[in-house]
Amino acid sequence: MNSELSSQQVQEIGEQGLLERLQRFCPPEIIGDDAAVLVTAPEQSLVVTADMLIDGVHFSDVTTSPEDAGWRAAAANLSDLAAMGASPLGITVGLGLPGEVRVSWVEQLYQGMTECLQKYNTSIVGGDVVRSPVTTLAITAFGQVNPSQIIRRSAAVVGNAIVVTGVHGASRAGLELLLHPELGQNLKDTERTALILAHQRPHPRLDVLPILWKILESQSQIQVALEAHQRCDLKSKIPIAGMDSSDGLADAIIQICRASGVGAVLERRQISMPTAFDNWLTQEQALAYALYGGEDFELVLCLPQESALALVKHLSQGAAIVGNITSGSTVLLHDEQKKLPDQVLSLSQGFQHFGQ
Amino acid sequence: MNSELSSQQVQEIGEQGLLERLQRFCPPEIIGDDAAVLVTAPEQSLVVTADMLIDGVHFSDVTTSPEDAGWRAAAANLSDLAAMGASPLGITVGLGLPGEVRVSWVEQLYQGMTECLQKYNTSIVGGDVVRSPVTTLAITAFGQVNPSQIIRRSAAVVGNAIVVTGVHGASRAGLELLLHPELGQNLKDTERTALILAHQRPHPRLDVLPILWKILESQSQIQVALEAHQRCDLKSKIPIAGMDSSDGLADAIIQICRASGVGAVLERRQISMPTAFDNWLTQEQALAYALYGGEDFELVLCLPQESALALVKHLSQGAAIVGNITSGSTVLLHDEQKKLPDQVLSLSQGFQHFGQ
Repeated sequence: MNSELSSQQVQEIGEQGLLERLQRFCPPEIIGDDAAVLVTAPEQSLVVTADMLIDGVHFSDVTTSPEDAGWRAAAANLSDLAAMGASPLGITVGLGLPGEVRVSWVEQLYQGMTECLQKYNTSIVGGDVVRSPVTTLAITAFGQVNPSQIIRRSAAVVGNAIVVTGVHGASRAGLELLLHPELGQNLKDTERTALILAHQRPHPRLDVLPILWKILESQSQIQVALEAHQRCDLKSKIPIAGMDSSDGLADAIIQICRASGVGAVLERRQISMPTAFDNWLTQEQALAYALYGGEDFELVLCLPQESALALVKHLSQGAAIVGNITSGSTVLLHDEQKKLPDQVLSLSQGFQHFGQ
Repeated sequence: MNSELSSQQVQEIGEQGLLERLQRFCPPEIIGDDAAVLVTAPEQSLVVTADMLIDGVHFSDVTTSPEDAGWRAAAANLSDLAAMGASPLGITVGLGLPGEVRVSWVEQLYQGMTECLQKYNTSIVGGDVVRSPVTTLAITAFGQVNPSQIIRRSAAVVGNAIVVTGVHGASRAGLELLLHPELGQNLKDTERTALILAHQRPHPRLDVLPILWKILESQSQIQVALEAHQRCDLKSKIPIAGMDSSDGLADAIIQICRASGVGAVLERRQISMPTAFDNWLTQEQALAYALYGGEDFELVLCLPQESALALVKHLSQGAAIVGNITSGSTVLLHDEQKKLPDQVLSLSQGFQHFGQ
């Protein structure tokens, strides 16, 4: 990076000048035409998701460096692809900028985005840079998925186990530590750093997908073999329901239940959280962060019990079966030790917890 | 449309409320998951293009109704797909809105977008609505193209004819009439209306593509037959160079020449313009509008002479061969009647013409 040039403001080099500076963040073969051309695998469906982020509303220099804002924006969109079972093909980036923004700020934003994208073998394949009174980031991500492996919110069935692919609450806790550094005095330095990193550099769980397909494939073969023996339909498949927990674990489970026309029982003590919470938060605070904090970008999947058990076994610490899909329409928080009464979860509780 | 609800401001119904109101502009099957799933045809490449539009910079209620702003935004993105030879699969729409914007304004914007998209058998397949201090529209368009039919800026070769698919200058003239209604007193009402419509409701030239493929296919067959007779390579193909004229005809030709490492001679009197210009503008004004006005969204294609002739013959009035690709790197404006000296075209002239 040329630091002399980077200390300039965007208005000094103009939109065309900035576009030229940003081309190094894109694969060279996609530059120079009206649109980018991408090769897709045969017999895959295209998956598309779009996000818009506004300075002061969705990101802020107070808690987030431009690199982290870029990483988080890319991660959120890749997580939406993972939530559908799709592998990323690329993203487009629309950027609106006031003239006085530093070129270095924009380059750091792109640096953060490309660092996240490279980790998942994908890249920025197109975009637009324009003048705007407020810094605005519009990302569209596209991926591909085998049509038989699409994960849908509406596919949960009674009896499914609800799997989380990792701990919840870490991102919200990290944000709290950034906003109020005086909090969590009993936390070890490594714990504090890990929670803050969970907020600044979340990981979309694209890594879960190949593990999931492998488990479902082997279980599907067993099922087919059994059914063949019983002269049943040979074509039955294990349906996959789920979404990501970007808006919180409670939100994910409630959305899945609504879309599938089912209910759920969530086991209070099975919800996995960072062990650091024990040194800082009350049980109720910890649970509020885990259920309503959001931005952990884990997957919440509803699967037959044996598939769920196999998946949790193959994922790293934090993955857990947190409950079951039930008939009806309520989502209950249950205490298996029966010390606390059942509690009906609703989305409005999240707003109450954080005073929004 | 429920007019009582539509007179409300966005902040009264919230982002979730607005999203629900906008769902009627999307196909029902794509709603309710983290991302939309689209089926692509086998052996097609994916084409992606992104655009960002800011209130006061790229559109304005002074010259553009919300319906027209929506139509124009959709048309510009479809034109980028047409410029690559691609058929549309859908668009995503990111929308940033101040709280005081009327719900009816947003609905009219979406109405305009969907009217344009429906004309080309495509639709809004996803998006995001967020609060922002300035109205911001971020569109990403997706299309598919047979890899052998990708149109690239870099494929022009010496000897190619330069084809425009219609008249140039109409959109800029229409904008001028909207900004200064006192101009063009000699124009007939129908002429005035047609010029204004060219600005408000431009047509991306997706209709040209099937005609172009048919001509190239038949000419390719003749070529292959001839070459087979001469025992030459059977696989030779006619390359297709081009782009759209969204930033002006001069810009399109200069960009193609730069990307292809060639020059061009443009015949001053072959550049097709609206006949209404004769009743209003001087020849030099008319030429400035045609070369530098922009937003006509025609295609500018470089093809072998016989293909170019066949294409112009099959397109409606306004399509023309406007010049030829030459060796060297300059783009010359030439007067075949030799009344005016040759003039070298450059992009900076466009800015001079419009005092930018």
